[in-house]
Amino acid sequence: MSTESAYLRALMATLGPKGWSQDPDILAPHLTEWRDKYFGHTPILLLPQTTAQVSEAVKICSQHGVPIMAQGGNTGLVGGNTPQGEVLLSTRRLKAVRAVNPAANMMIAEAGVTLEVAQQAAQTAGRKFPLNLASQGSCTIGGVISTNAGGVHVIKYGTTKALVTGVEAVLADGRIYNGLSGLKKDNTGYDLSRLFIGAEGTLGIVTAASLKLFERPQTVVRVCAGFNAIKEAMSLLARCQSPALAMFEIMPRIGVQAVIENFAGHQDPFSAPYPWYGILDFEIYDGQSDDFITALINRAIDDGLVRDAVIAQSGAQAKALLGLRENMSAAQKHLGASIKHDISIPVDQVANFISRADAAALALIPHARPVAFGHLGDGNIHYNVTSPIGADSDVFLAHWDALQSVVHDIVDSLGGSISAEHGIGIMKKQELAARADPVKMALLRSVKSALDPDNIMNPRVLI
Amino acid sequence: MSTESAYLRALMATLGPKGWSQDPDILAPHLTEWRDKYFGHTPILLLPQTTAQVSEAVKICSQHGVPIMAQGGNTGLVGGNTPQGEVLLSTRRLKAVRAVNPAANMMIAEAGVTLEVAQQAAQTAGRKFPLNLASQGSCTIGGVISTNAGGVHVIKYGTTKALVTGVEAVLADGRIYNGLSGLKKDNTGYDLSRLFIGAEGTLGIVTAASLKLFERPQTVVRVCAGFNAIKEAMSLLARCQSPALAMFEIMPRIGVQAVIENFAGHQDPFSAPYPWYGILDFEIYDGQSDDFITALINRAIDDGLVRDAVIAQSGAQAKALLGLRENMSAAQKHLGASIKHDISIPVDQVANFISRADAAALALIPHARPVAFGHLGDGNIHYNVTSPIGADSDVFLAHWDALQSVVHDIVDSLGGSISAEHGIGIMKKQELAARADPVKMALLRSVKSALDPDNIMNPRVLI
Repeated sequence: MSTESAYLRALMATLGPKGWSQDPDILAPHLTEWRDKYFGHTPILLLPQTTAQVSEAVKICSQHGVPIMAQGGNTGLVGGNTPQGEVLLSTRRLKAVRAVNPAANMMIAEAGVTLEVAQQAAQTAGRKFPLNLASQGSCTIGGVISTNAGGVHVIKYGTTKALVTGVEAVLADGRIYNGLSGLKKDNTGYDLSRLFIGAEGTLGIVTAASLKLFERPQTVVRVCAGFNAIKEAMSLLARCQSPALAMFEIMPRIGVQAVIENFAGHQDPFSAPYPWYGILDFEIYDGQSDDFITALINRAIDDGLVRDAVIAQSGAQAKALLGLRENMSAAQKHLGASIKHDISIPVDQVANFISRADAAALALIPHARPVAFGHLGDGNIHYNVTSPIGADSDVFLAHWDALQSVVHDIVDSLGGSISAEHGIGIMKKQELAARADPVKMALLRSVKSALDPDNIMNPRVLI
Repeated sequence: MSTESAYLRALMATLGPKGWSQDPDILAPHLTEWRDKYFGHTPILLLPQTTAQVSEAVKICSQHGVPIMAQGGNTGLVGGNTPQGEVLLSTRRLKAVRAVNPAANMMIAEAGVTLEVAQQAAQTAGRKFPLNLASQGSCTIGGVISTNAGGVHVIKYGTTKALVTGVEAVLADGRIYNGLSGLKKDNTGYDLSRLFIGAEGTLGIVTAASLKLFERPQTVVRVCAGFNAIKEAMSLLARCQSPALAMFEIMPRIGVQAVIENFAGHQDPFSAPYPWYGILDFEIYDGQSDDFITALINRAIDDGLVRDAVIAQSGAQAKALLGLRENMSAAQKHLGASIKHDISIPVDQVANFISRADAAALALIPHARPVAFGHLGDGNIHYNVTSPIGADSDVFLAHWDALQSVVHDIVDSLGGSISAEHGIGIMKKQELAARADPVKMALLRSVKSALDPDNIMNPRVLI
């Protein structure tokens, strides 16, 4: 009997008949990434239902020195959740919302709870869980924690890091770390829970988390604005120094037009086209007036910062405006092949970055079409470049590494990050190792070795 | 020539004549804690002026295996910054505010900048740095980071953890980790900067930090309320589900009376005494009305939750009301000796905790006088117990360990923390080791060993 079958037999026995699968049809959706960029294989898919089962499974892997990868909703973007021979542990059956405490503004959800279910549980309790992602129907709490997901409300609420007060995690040897107290203040040592947020499963498997809840705004005012230049949007952002500001997204004309032309139910927000569009949300509480928003936008129009603007007058209109932004990535497919980046720079450097990156992209690939959009308020730009009209996709995509390299050079020169919100995974691992401060890389490796000395937790990703 | 003199000579040569001292008069204030609870000694006081000098000094200590402790404003409360033979490195000359960027709501300050100077730098730029402590004239940015300081505005702004985007730190071998980018989004690995926040100097010496700035409120409305029971205050807190709420402190009658009787310029806020008092701040922006606060308080009075209330009508009145809370600790000295705790429990358990702790304290020490006050909104109570009237201080203080043990037992049974905001230091090290989950203790020690394998960074504290 081989060693391999010994650990497989132990896993099967421990998890029981419903707790694992080797059926190719059941495995298939877990082995392909949704953009068809990564394809994988695994000796077994584990489907534990409790933290104790995760613990037992990891203990077996640890004892046999077998690598293991956890997977949530399989919506990752950097190849970090497609196995290449690792045992694959799906968290989908860890789906209990263990507690919702509106008085303490706290909720405990297991790793396999989808973001949408978590949002609904908060809403049922009269509260708001503000993380908001296009993939929220599929992505899971364990996944958003392991990737420190961002989204459109980071400018007000922060990334996932700011929304988690603690985690429960199964460590590399199977022990269970419980950081779920949810206390608002606890100065008893290093922030261990925080280590697991954005760790991409390399330090342990997050099995549950305590999440912060917030008051629900009485009104959300959504504004769409047209700009002649990205600098105008930055000037408007600088004027929006209000805690009410909960979103400030930007989109270029080429992207807005692609959504309008390719998706039903969308129309041009203004009678004339503008080079750039902004979508802003303001959240209002305490029965307050939203007059200040109209005044702010009117002043910006008078001062020539905003060329035209519309304030959504209905839920349907608000939804349609945000749809322009939400469909941006999907609409790009209709334009042609794209080379994509997820970068951040200091907020005041966005215009500078886009102008330098556009020049570099066009120098490398004449007639390429930059589609830079995203979270202006966070300095996080999805700097995508679509192929020239009529160009061959493969010829264009062969420029990926070269374009990425010049774009990341510009990011580095501005003190930015080569992964703002998608993570490192497999896709950016070499870039990180090549570009990061060696002291940082050494520290990352020290922490990894301390928590996973045998390197069995998602061992191919991040570092 | 002994090894000892070799490392001292190396430190003196590296830091130059202004960079160190062995003069007992200069050393004295660094060796005594302000409450006269801890007294220490050191072979040398280092006074580096740059991060590079800190790095060189730590390298020398590392090469000679000599322990080193950093000290900021020397306002700590748990004995974590009084040396017992360690080299003592004061950060006071690291006092540059390196950058203030109001557009990006970011500031970079060196470790020796006092909290007050940091607040002023933010204010000069039209922004607010919201950390607010009684010791802010003395305590330093390095100190508040190393202890993850809290204060009265945590309910809105979070502890220091939530206010720091990254740190620069000298590691145990003298290398410099630079996490100062201040980017709002950066998913390139574990949150290394976060490890140093609340680490009490055990993983490295924080030399600078990038700090988050916020819009300054146009108005701060301060309310003082009288309650018949702590549960009434909790009910009011539950009704204050407004993002405007920036402070909710509670004080018992005995403490308020001690302030009024012993400090000039204080008077009873109401014509009748009440068992409990609350001090609330609401921050108003965007030219909004504060009518909702009056309405909220009036409803609470109508419903019998609040017995009387006053809304400060001037800056002087607002200051006097907060003074009742700020002088609470000092006023206790006039009542007699006190046994002190800094605990947190889930916010909805505060009344339960106080009632159980009072019963336990009186069972152990008949006629003792509990003075429980603090941050109701964070579930953080400074549960102090003052000696019975006329009791001998030493006899009373001999109960410290026994009382602490029963109070901490209650905290543990409620899922709370034995150190909400003061840290562990020397004072609570044994309690932490005895009470914490062994998995947590093992993880803390793994991280410590990974970052400080020779155990030279503030080696006697925390773990």
